Amino acid sequence: MDKATMTEAIIARKIEKELTWEQMGSDLGMSPVWLTSACLGMNSAPAEKAAAIAEYLGFDQSMATALEAYPTKIWDQAVPTDPLIYRLYEIVGVYGDTLKEVIQEKFGDGIMSAIDFSMEVDKIEDPKGDRVLLTLNGKFLPYKSW
Amino acid sequence: MDKATMTEAIIARKIEKELTWEQMGSDLGMSPVWLTSACLGMNSAPAEKAAAIAEYLGFDQSMATALEAYPTKIWDQAVPTDPLIYRLYEIVGVYGDTLKEVIQEKFGDGIMSAIDFSMEVDKIEDPKGDRVLLTLNGKFLPYKSW
Amino acid sequence: MDKATMTEAIIARKIEKELTWEQMGSDLGMSPVWLTSACLGMNSAPAEKAAAIAEYLGFDQSMATALEAYPTKIWDQAVPTDPLIYRLYEIVGVYGDTLKEVIQEKFGDGIMSAIDFSMEVDKIEDPKGDRVLLTLNGKFLPYKSW
Amino acid sequence: MDKATMTEAIIARKIEKELTWEQMGSDLGMSPVWLTSACLGMNSAPAEKAAAIAEYLGFDQSMATALEAYPTKIWDQAVPTDPLIYRLYEIVGVYGDTLKEVIQEKFGDGIMSAIDFSMEVDKIEDPKGDRVLLTLNGKFLPYKSW
Amino acid sequence: MDKATMTEAIIARKIEKELTWEQMGSDLGMSPVWLTSACLGMNSAPAEKAAAIAEYLGFDQSMATALEAYPTKIWDQAVPTDPLIYRLYEIVGVYGDTLKEVIQEKFGDGIMSAIDFSMEVDKIEDPKGDRVLLTLNGKFLPYKSW
Amino acid sequence: MDKATMTEAIIARKIEKELTWEQMGSDLGMSPVWLTSACLGMNSAPAEKAAAIAEYLGFDQSMATALEAYPTKIWDQAVPTDPLIYRLYEIVGVYGDTLKEVIQEKFGDGIMSAIDFSMEVDKIEDPKGDRVLLTLNGKFLPYKSW
Amino acid sequence: MDKATMTEAIIARKIEKELTWEQMGSDLGMSPVWLTSACLGMNSAPAEKAAAIAEYLGFDQSMATALEAYPTKIWDQAVPTDPLIYRLYEIVGVYGDTLKEVIQEKFGDGIMSAIDFSMEVDKIEDPKGDRVLLTLNGKFLPYKSW
Amino acid sequence: MDKATMTEAIIARKIEKELTWEQMGSDLGMSPVWLTSACLGMNSAPAEKAAAIAEYLGFDQSMATALEAYPTKIWDQAVPTDPLIYRLYEIVGVYGDTLKEVIQEKFGDGIMSAIDFSMEVDKIEDPKGDRVLLTLNGKFLPYKSW
Amino acid sequence: MDKATMTEAIIARKIEKELTWEQMGSDLGMSPVWLTSACLGMNSAPAEKAAAIAEYLGFDQSMATALEAYPTKIWDQAVPTDPLIYRLYEIVGVYGDTLKEVIQEKFGDGIMSAIDFSMEVDKIEDPKGDRVLLTLNGKFLPYKSW
Amino acid sequence: MDKATMTEAIIARKIEKELTWEQMGSDLGMSPVWLTSACLGMNSAPAEKAAAIAEYLGFDQSMATALEAYPTKIWDQAVPTDPLIYRLYEIVGVYGDTLKEVIQEKFGDGIMSAIDFSMEVDKIEDPKGDRVLLTLNGKFLPYKSW
Repeated sequence: MDKATMTEAIIARKIEKELTWEQMGSDLGMSPVWLTSACLGMNSAPAEKAAAIAEYLGFDQSMATALEAYPTKIWDQAVPTDPLIYRLYEIVGVYGDTLKEVIQEKFGDGIMSAIDFSMEVDKIEDPKGDRVLLTLNGKFLPYKSW
Repeated sequence: MDKATMTEAIIARKIEKELTWEQMGSDLGMSPVWLTSACLGMNSAPAEKAAAIAEYLGFDQSMATALEAYPTKIWDQAVPTDPLIYRLYEIVGVYGDTLKEVIQEKFGDGIMSAIDFSMEVDKIEDPKGDRVLLTLNGKFLPYKSW
Repeated sequence: MDKATMTEAIIARKIEKELTWEQMGSDLGMSPVWLTSACLGMNSAPAEKAAAIAEYLGFDQSMATALEAYPTKIWDQAVPTDPLIYRLYEIVGVYGDTLKEVIQEKFGDGIMSAIDFSMEVDKIEDPKGDRVLLTLNGKFLPYKSW
Repeated sequence: MDKATMTEAIIARKIEKELTWEQMGSDLGMSPVWLTSACLGMNSAPAEKAAAIAEYLGFDQSMATALEAYPTKIWDQAVPTDPLIYRLYEIVGVYGDTLKEVIQEKFGDGIMSAIDFSMEVDKIEDPKGDRVLLTLNGKFLPYKSW
Repeated sequence: MDKATMTEAIIARKIEKELTWEQMGSDLGMSPVWLTSACLGMNSAPAEKAAAIAEYLGFDQSMATALEAYPTKIWDQAVPTDPLIYRLYEIVGVYGDTLKEVIQEKFGDGIMSAIDFSMEVDKIEDPKGDRVLLTLNGKFLPYKSW
Repeated sequence: MDKATMTEAIIARKIEKELTWEQMGSDLGMSPVWLTSACLGMNSAPAEKAAAIAEYLGFDQSMATALEAYPTKIWDQAVPTDPLIYRLYEIVGVYGDTLKEVIQEKFGDGIMSAIDFSMEVDKIEDPKGDRVLLTLNGKFLPYKSW
Repeated sequence: MDKATMTEAIIARKIEKELTWEQMGSDLGMSPVWLTSACLGMNSAPAEKAAAIAEYLGFDQSMATALEAYPTKIWDQAVPTDPLIYRLYEIVGVYGDTLKEVIQEKFGDGIMSAIDFSMEVDKIEDPKGDRVLLTLNGKFLPYKSW
Repeated sequence: MDKATMTEAIIARKIEKELTWEQMGSDLGMSPVWLTSACLGMNSAPAEKAAAIAEYLGFDQSMATALEAYPTKIWDQAVPTDPLIYRLYEIVGVYGDTLKEVIQEKFGDGIMSAIDFSMEVDKIEDPKGDRVLLTLNGKFLPYKSW
Repeated sequence: MDKATMTEAIIARKIEKELTWEQMGSDLGMSPVWLTSACLGMNSAPAEKAAAIAEYLGFDQSMATALEAYPTKIWDQAVPTDPLIYRLYEIVGVYGDTLKEVIQEKFGDGIMSAIDFSMEVDKIEDPKGDRVLLTLNGKFLPYKSW
Repeated sequence: MDKATMTEAIIARKIEKELTWEQMGSDLGMSPVWLTSACLGMNSAPAEKAAAIAEYLGFDQSMATALEAYPTKIWDQAVPTDPLIYRLYEIVGVYGDTLKEVIQEKFGDGIMSAIDFSMEVDKIEDPKGDRVLLTLNGKFLPYKSW
């Protein structure tokens, strides 16, 4: 089963069972963001987690195998058009140099890893309009001389 | 004074005075991220903040005026090449659809604003390698029907 | 049912019933522009509106569900080629900086929201050639410092 | 005097005289949007209007000549990055097909002219946040067979 | 019937009946260029012309309906590769600024319409090599101030 | 003298002498379109014509030499933005396949040369709006087998 | 039969019959390069040659008709990736200006036709490594003034 | 002296001395094509050839040094616009797959080197129009398994 | 059998037989990197190697024929998005000019061949994190004058 | 001193002193590849190394400061044109998927770091043509679930 088929099957089952990513993450003891990315095929799941997800959703071992497979991460739009995703792209454009200044001042020359990395989404209720809180947590990797 | 001249002058003065964005933000009571973006010319500063920054750095009113000016936000590289900035772009590519799933499940159809928005950078010390904590906070804007 | 299937079915039914978007909007008490965008799959419909549209066109609940789904807004052409759509793109190119000057002079630094937004199309009859009147109405969102 | 020099001189004078586009348009009996586009070099001014603008700002005939010159309309960014302008581009992307449906249903096969065209910006005060009202008015041009 | 199906059917019938665009245009009293563009799906045909074309080729009403439909004009190659089409593109590149100079000198600031427009192809026999004569005829649209 | 300097000097002289391309072409016995393209640096002028143009405008031999030089024809915008030039580009996009059909039906497999080529611009006065008549005349070049 | 189907059938038959382009060209009295391009669908074959090729390969008239059809020459990659083809592209990039200098010095202002054109491939055996000899032969087309 | 300065000085001297690349190549015993590419800065000249060119043109050692420098070969236009160069690009597009078929049939899997490579331009006089003969000669490089 | 079908079949068989590229390379006496590239269809296999691979995996002669076929090497993404592949691209971007300096200093003007080329991947165990050792070995090809 | 000025000064001094990167690396006890990248401004040098390089070349502290500065790594060409650099790009294109297969088979799901990374260039003398040996050494970074 390839990743696209896997994702389609999981989404269909999720709708059928009236589940949310939030609920699934909570029941399985996994971060909803990571769980979603694994189910959308943008991350591989370790064997035991893959098995747990497949069982939870009522799939057999072939689904676990599909979740375990190492994905080739491809996105088609160099500049995304969906407004929710574009706003994130815009933040990188507007604040990219700023973050470089602030991070490298705090840590030295290097980068924030996108591999040794996790992310969370929280909701802050606010009478003037609820707010999205996005937390990115990546290991700092210093450049080395040799 | 245009924004490019303004930024060059501020960076030179900051080096001369051996300041950090962190220190400047702390002394002025402003977020270091926002302060940096204003000094790099990617945000306008309200009048009183512009005056405070100019005075703190020992510039006259023309610097405050430059900081107050509304910038045209332009970035040249649709896909950034600097590794620190590219990793942020990569996170948008890899996790864009995931964030859309998770945010819209929590909030309904809409987006996280990149305008009514703030961001912080923190350092988490860790013996296995320090970590960068990036916190994005944006108002949720629901789509409306009419 | 995905959005593409939904749109195809709605367009077919609309032709069969010899309806116009205008007529549908008027009968349903919805703006023709918004109604069209929802039927073309570029906006989600709130539950009661989705049900009303589905019923009006003689579809069952699966159509309402499709109309309610949150779309991923994708367009393929960074520069559109159809002359009607290109002229709108050209207006953004020719008048973009002008609108930035005039809007920000009136409102301060910020943007017109494309989310908290509505649009109408009117026809002005004119013996020298009828005119299209396009009205865009978006909330002003001011930039914030933090 | 080329258009870039012209624009720079006009902007400088406008700041010096503490004028707004609104005020200038009102004093000169011209639409602020059109006046701004002429001063930014994206439209030519008819001789008498060019003379009036030049005189109003205290420039000589060479400025009127520059305002009268027919511009080559060039924009560098196929996809604009400034958030205010991008939102307009996004509206074209999201609603382009919708507008084609609605306009051509009302008028037949053809386009809204971007040449025989005018545009206004208004401010609607609103306690929940002021709104930008953008009105585009273009002649409908029907396709012809031959 | 969509435009692609329509075009395929017309081309097949044209080959079967050993017709030329020239002959069809002459028999139907339509310009061969316009007739071809309508049959290729890049222009809509007015009702009576659509009916005449469909009847002439031996198709029923569904073909007339397809010919009447308003097309979305899309071309895939921003820079065309076929040599015949590329040469036209090259002429626009080489002579674009020249035509702007000459047309605007003759007509004032404005454009030649591509909507209120017609085009003819003629063959000039010449012993040194026959020549293609392409005649474009478009309404001049002057820019307006407002 | 390079072509850019040449063009700038010719344009300045043309304004000074209050000449039009039309008048220059008529006085020199050259097509205004060709003359303009040579003066804009997109075509080389044969020696005697170069000398005649230079003398007519009151320049010395270095101007004639510049006009004679073989240009490298470069245009920066793959898709032109100026509306007058874009409409020509749009015509190539909309009618490219149509012209291929019609020309190749009349002449066989081959192309219209953009090198052994001439072009004229005429004005057709019309009470409903004057019309631009653009005539392209290129040698037909048949493909050869070998 | 469209060109893609035609090419697929010819390649399959060629493999089945264990033919080479070289052998086919020699048996049919045609250049192997031209023959290959006609079979790959990038050139049309004159009627008698089309018939000869079809007969030689054991196909009926429909294959001859497909070979005779005028192709639309499309290539997908503006910059080719296959190393053999890329090296040719690289030669155009590295030596383009050089060839312009040398050809125009020898022939005057003009171009080498890619339409009235032929090409041959030869093998030069060499103990240090065989060499590919590529010979391009195109009519010189001088620019004309008018 | 960088390559751009070097080329400008050589071209100026060549015009001053009324030389041709042909004559220079003949006098110096070098191929005119290679010599031109070295003078345009797209190839480095071996020491003795660099010295000979510099002396021949009346320059000192710094010119020889500039000719010897290893160039970074950069071209700005992925798709060239100058018609002479575009036709070469078009030949790669139209005949790329053909050449791959014919060369690999003759030589096996591999490529024609663009490094161990030479090229000549010849003129074939022809009453129907002179022809350009372009000869490319590159070492065949076979792919290897390992 | 085309290369895509070939690759799909080989990957399926490899999973079925629980093989690794490492194991296959070792058993067949071939480099795992080269073997993988041949099985992914980016290199052709010499006849005897193709036969050995096909036999080893339990396929018949048609698989060997597919492995022997000369591939057209195409990649879709000018800038790859998968993080593992992007990092390699980034290394070319960051160190490209550096490698040009160092290689040409050591070898003279020329390039490292990507055709007469091999590559190996090794794992260096390290308590602070294992390391990937990538070894590229290509023939130096000097530029020649002529 | 910015990085561009720094690089220019270092290259000039290196030529003046007739140094090689090899010699400099050997004298300073640094890898020639890393040293070159630091001098070309694509890596920052730690304080003591920056001081050593500056002193070795006879520059003062401002040069050390420039070498220490954290660079913004930018390259202009998404697809490099210089043949030496293009071949590296081609290797990424041809072998990217292969390396992903082989590395992830050996290490699990993850990437080779381009930050915790070093590279060496060696020359292997060979009578059939010397070979370039390029060794890349990067830390393996495993993806993590959370």
